[in-house]
Amino acid sequence: MSRGITAPKGFQAAGFYSGVKRKRKDLAMMVSKSPMNWAALFTTNVVKAAPVIWGESLLKAGSPLQALVINSGNANACTGEQGDLDLKKMVEQTAMVLSIPETSVLVASTGVIGVPLPIEKILAGIPQVANLLDASQDADDAVTQGIMTTDTFLKQASITIEIQGKEVTMGGMAKGSGMIHPNMATMLAFVTTDAKVETALLQELLKEASDDSYHMISVDGDTSTNDTVAVFANGESGVAITKGGEGYQEFKDAFFKIHQTLAIAIVSDGEGAGKLIEVQVVGAATKEAAKRMARSIVSSSLVKTAFFGEDANWGRILCAMGYSGADFNPKEVSIQIQSEQGLIDLMKQGVPIVFDEGLAAKILAEEKLQVLVTIQDGIEQATAWGCDLSYEYVKINGEYRT
Amino acid sequence: MSRGITAPKGFQAAGFYSGVKRKRKDLAMMVSKSPMNWAALFTTNVVKAAPVIWGESLLKAGSPLQALVINSGNANACTGEQGDLDLKKMVEQTAMVLSIPETSVLVASTGVIGVPLPIEKILAGIPQVANLLDASQDADDAVTQGIMTTDTFLKQASITIEIQGKEVTMGGMAKGSGMIHPNMATMLAFVTTDAKVETALLQELLKEASDDSYHMISVDGDTSTNDTVAVFANGESGVAITKGGEGYQEFKDAFFKIHQTLAIAIVSDGEGAGKLIEVQVVGAATKEAAKRMARSIVSSSLVKTAFFGEDANWGRILCAMGYSGADFNPKEVSIQIQSEQGLIDLMKQGVPIVFDEGLAAKILAEEKLQVLVTIQDGIEQATAWGCDLSYEYVKINGEYRT
Repeated sequence: MSRGITAPKGFQAAGFYSGVKRKRKDLAMMVSKSPMNWAALFTTNVVKAAPVIWGESLLKAGSPLQALVINSGNANACTGEQGDLDLKKMVEQTAMVLSIPETSVLVASTGVIGVPLPIEKILAGIPQVANLLDASQDADDAVTQGIMTTDTFLKQASITIEIQGKEVTMGGMAKGSGMIHPNMATMLAFVTTDAKVETALLQELLKEASDDSYHMISVDGDTSTNDTVAVFANGESGVAITKGGEGYQEFKDAFFKIHQTLAIAIVSDGEGAGKLIEVQVVGAATKEAAKRMARSIVSSSLVKTAFFGEDANWGRILCAMGYSGADFNPKEVSIQIQSEQGLIDLMKQGVPIVFDEGLAAKILAEEKLQVLVTIQDGIEQATAWGCDLSYEYVKINGEYRT
Repeated sequence: MSRGITAPKGFQAAGFYSGVKRKRKDLAMMVSKSPMNWAALFTTNVVKAAPVIWGESLLKAGSPLQALVINSGNANACTGEQGDLDLKKMVEQTAMVLSIPETSVLVASTGVIGVPLPIEKILAGIPQVANLLDASQDADDAVTQGIMTTDTFLKQASITIEIQGKEVTMGGMAKGSGMIHPNMATMLAFVTTDAKVETALLQELLKEASDDSYHMISVDGDTSTNDTVAVFANGESGVAITKGGEGYQEFKDAFFKIHQTLAIAIVSDGEGAGKLIEVQVVGAATKEAAKRMARSIVSSSLVKTAFFGEDANWGRILCAMGYSGADFNPKEVSIQIQSEQGLIDLMKQGVPIVFDEGLAAKILAEEKLQVLVTIQDGIEQATAWGCDLSYEYVKINGEYRT
């Protein structure tokens, strides 16, 4: 297993079972030895959970953080004033237990919506999870388990690079967009680093990295009330990263890589997903056009069901590009699909290619598939990731009843 | 069965089996006694089928039409130059057989894409279908059968109203967004009327009516290469409709009603659909906001699977509103669901309501469901129609293999 958020220096974390879920860990905490510069992106949904509103206010204030506390099993969304009061209690309890200011505590919640938090259980759990704080593989795993809902595997990543002769590490954890009755859950992703990075630069990097990772994945097109992506930099490595300074590009590359790894892990674990579909569009006139086309392909229910059926359906791919909102010349489109079993050309410069159905079946039977779309309008490109749409997705989301 | 496109005076139609499909009717024709003013909306997909490009050029020229010819079983899309040549042959043959100008022949095609038309069969069929032209219930049914692909029932409607002491009739036919391997098919809708309506007014009415009908339905969010909606007015009733003139409002109401009827028929026959979901959003600040919210709800995979699972899932409805792009205050949202079995309140002014699960189960077991969403931002409202997302949808689109 890859290391997670306590891989960088000066971070500790823990996961604990407080009784919100039936039996698995449901409370997660991360603290930093020293105050952390941080940046975050929150859901764009008009309906925002109480912890998201709290997080937005902290972000606006811009002061450093010292702790992150997350409960899973209940999203504290659509819970009215009670939800705001419960959120406040979680913040107060965490601040008191850790002896830090309330405004240095970021909170996230994920799980059912519209149901008040079992706040007493969470308040009782906070000192206990704090008691378990540690920096280790076990601590990484425990904190990640604490944020899971219907995820079927741990989503973690870490990268160490050398900058200015010193080690700089990043660690990350995420949970996917699994849905829990009666409602949707959440995408959460958190990345820690022991580099010293100013807040404005962190926010800029997070925005850019998210555009190329979390914003390029699609499970089912629904955006939850609780989605939160945050990054924390505590400077404990002694290495300062400045824009364009020494090691900046290496840091940026690693930062993008870790977010991309977490995003791909999320989509790989999409509900009912049996296949990971990577779509690369190259030769677009603009980056935005390339992104629109790639996203449109991975989001199309028809494309997704075709991959579930292991059907080399170029028509649905071309059609999804066609309604993406990006302009292109259909007569210049080439489409290829490949996996570890080989590659087939489905369309070349607008002309459908007669392909070997036997080879296509072998290629499409794999769990990781790549679609390469080439247009001839320019030099921009983009990659998006999605999954197939299966009976299992309908079952999980249609048949799950309390 | 409702009458269809030959209900108005002066229209004849026929359907014929030419051999494109395996055995069902695959060629349809409609002609008018006198030249028809007409208006049309074509797919917004960048990838357009040959007949769509022809139709757009005719619309731009603005001259009257005399005939419509449609083949089903093959969409003549992504067929390159051969597709353009085949389209031209269909036009020439129809014009010759009917002794009318080529520029008075509108063509539509629906079915598989990327495969050249079996043009000889179609050319041989054109004189034969022309030979069957008639005005009757049988002719209505036959022409509608001729445009079907995976549709499971005929979609027709007709309305007769009295204006200026005379009868004015409209007739319509449509086919749904069924998908045929290896690709997507098409939404087609055609409405005839014996009123006399100027082209500009027809285009204006069609645009408005489509915004409230075809643009408010969602089966799976995919837009095909061949979608075509067209209206034809031949004036044979002797009644002229002018904007704001006598009978204008009655004509407009009937015109909207017939398009709405066809649109609802299309969505009712969505692939694998077991339920028709009508979503009404009232109390919005703007019409656009109401439409966005209503459309977002009927398009959400999570909402659709919840209805398949007969789950009164207000959280998914609220969430879909939240990412619709329209702004609203979540604390002012009320949500009700009703069917012939009764009505339940799920949320009242932002607060989830504890509801009778037994009653909810009875209500949701029905095939026609209405969702009423009330916000308190203004007086605008909109209605959208969708269907559930079922195993059958995944099966039809994922497992169909040649």
